Amino acid sequence: MKTIPLILMGCGGVGCHLLQHIVSCRSLHSSQGLCLNVLGVSDSKSLVVTEDSSNKGLDDKFLMELCRVKRDGGSLSKLGDLGDCRLFSHPELQERILELASQLGGKTDCSASSNTVPVLKQVVDMGCCIVMANKKPLTSTMEDFEKLYAYPRRIRHESTVGAGLPVIASLNRIISSGDPVHRIIGSLSGTLGYVMSEVEDGKPLSQVVRAAKSLGYTEPDPREDLGGMDVARKALILARILGQRINMDTIQIESLYPKEMGPDVMSVEDFMNSGLPFCEVGIQELPKNSPLGRLRGSDNVLEIYTRCYTSQPLVIQGAGAGNDTTAAGVLADIVDIQDLFP
Amino acid sequence: MKTIPLILMGCGGVGCHLLQHIVSCRSLHSSQGLCLNVLGVSDSKSLVVTEDSSNKGLDDKFLMELCRVKRDGGSLSKLGDLGDCRLFSHPELQERILELASQLGGKTDCSASSNTVPVLKQVVDMGCCIVMANKKPLTSTMEDFEKLYAYPRRIRHESTVGAGLPVIASLNRIISSGDPVHRIIGSLSGTLGYVMSEVEDGKPLSQVVRAAKSLGYTEPDPREDLGGMDVARKALILARILGQRINMDTIQIESLYPKEMGPDVMSVEDFMNSGLPFCEVGIQELPKNSPLGRLRGSDNVLEIYTRCYTSQPLVIQGAGAGNDTTAAGVLADIVDIQDLFP
Repeated sequence: MKTIPLILMGCGGVGCHLLQHIVSCRSLHSSQGLCLNVLGVSDSKSLVVTEDSSNKGLDDKFLMELCRVKRDGGSLSKLGDLGDCRLFSHPELQERILELASQLGGKTDCSASSNTVPVLKQVVDMGCCIVMANKKPLTSTMEDFEKLYAYPRRIRHESTVGAGLPVIASLNRIISSGDPVHRIIGSLSGTLGYVMSEVEDGKPLSQVVRAAKSLGYTEPDPREDLGGMDVARKALILARILGQRINMDTIQIESLYPKEMGPDVMSVEDFMNSGLPFCEVGIQELPKNSPLGRLRGSDNVLEIYTRCYTSQPLVIQGAGAGNDTTAAGVLADIVDIQDLFP
Repeated sequence: MKTIPLILMGCGGVGCHLLQHIVSCRSLHSSQGLCLNVLGVSDSKSLVVTEDSSNKGLDDKFLMELCRVKRDGGSLSKLGDLGDCRLFSHPELQERILELASQLGGKTDCSASSNTVPVLKQVVDMGCCIVMANKKPLTSTMEDFEKLYAYPRRIRHESTVGAGLPVIASLNRIISSGDPVHRIIGSLSGTLGYVMSEVEDGKPLSQVVRAAKSLGYTEPDPREDLGGMDVARKALILARILGQRINMDTIQIESLYPKEMGPDVMSVEDFMNSGLPFCEVGIQELPKNSPLGRLRGSDNVLEIYTRCYTSQPLVIQGAGAGNDTTAAGVLADIVDIQDLFP
């Protein structure tokens, strides 16, 4: 039985789904000779680790209880019965994670913050593998990116672009076969996809965004989606994988709202009530029969044009958002690095 | 530098393209710390190996000369200057391949025959990895399949379904994340795709098949494409990956020509001239806006419905035929098994 020891940083929506997937896949993975041992789980404030020296990991019942607490909006420090586990909190947190990592191989970043960068860089030095759903560490400075990518086989981050869609895996296959990539176009925001489909049907943008917000499709401040930063991060990750040594500031972002309606100028409420109705959206004509032209709803789509896919692109399309599919992508990444473990 | 030693069985269209890709990717792979050493190349009759005991492999100039000879329709035994290489022919062939494999780790089957099965089964026992573009070994008996799949991490065969399209890689990601696959539908024959697009445009089937044959899109006997056996093999491979222990005879194949026009009854010429005009093609209605409904030309498309992709499927679409993209898929597979090598 091959064992992959894991520390999970971030146990919000994606992290909790990942833990649930790991637990429900126990017998499947076991039939493949694989065992995923979750040795520690952290949120932004605390880390819970097993005190059991046999490295068997936190037990499944405890992991499910942990998910329940997090889903109810609590923090790890609210966990009642710790059993044979221990809880560490700030400022000890980072030091303890590194201590744990120094004994182990695997590390999963399902958080959404950029605070994980220092820890991630250090565990790479220790020879750990890192699996990420978090875009921020890969879209910070080029120096950080190259540090995290120092050992390309030891990093996986499929779920940073298009959730669980096999975008990075497919792109890496193209790169490693020497097929030159000419162009990538796509729609990588489920939120914007939904908004645009509704606008295409003739509804006014202001009404659609208000509906999307009330459906929970947007961030609490919809300008985070409308501003394009999320898509820009994904584009930057793809560009860097293709060898472009560029930063966020070289990416031109065409925001869907004018600067005068930015978060520095007006509140979310003012934006929703008085700003939004005056927003203009740029329209770009696309052949209705092209993959991008016929995209509907919150699906993501990516078209990759290469030497092998010259006139007709390689198209990958499907649900590109959601904690379930994002976590599934992280788990597939973890299973995929198994050959690096003894 | 990590070295992957390779024996290539089959150096027809796909095999030669693979050798060309390997040579043209030398500096790319070297920059990734990877070196692919081709120690032997065989066609159906002969095997050429390097006599150099340092295991450096056949040199690139020799490999390109070998491709030139094969492209001109020659066999390996026609190679003029062998340099420090040696040529073995039937009946020594199989024994020599096994001897070579016993010293090595990697093995690539780019042939199109089922004669490779005995050798492949033996090299699996030796602990070799196998990378295949050849569908036949995986669509023979369930016993053969399970033998070849005895160590699932050591077999790759992306190019057996949809040429270089990331079909198997994506399906394996879904499986390893525990996402249950409900349904797969698709169009996996570039030839049938072309024929159907033309029929959809109003042209008669007999005329379209005749044109496809003269364009070189079909096998010399177009009934091999029209009969559906090629697609059935791909379906069987996908089903077996999903855990179905089934054989070819459990797959219902709806041929596009009636039994009375089969190869046992009439010649290719008779079929083209008198049989074909009487062929009827079954039509199945599909929503025009579905991925399968809007497919045009020789592209392949696969829709995978799972728990994560319930109402809208995961769609993979693009060129699903051609030696160039098929060989690119094989090369990506080879690069992907690198972690299994010391």
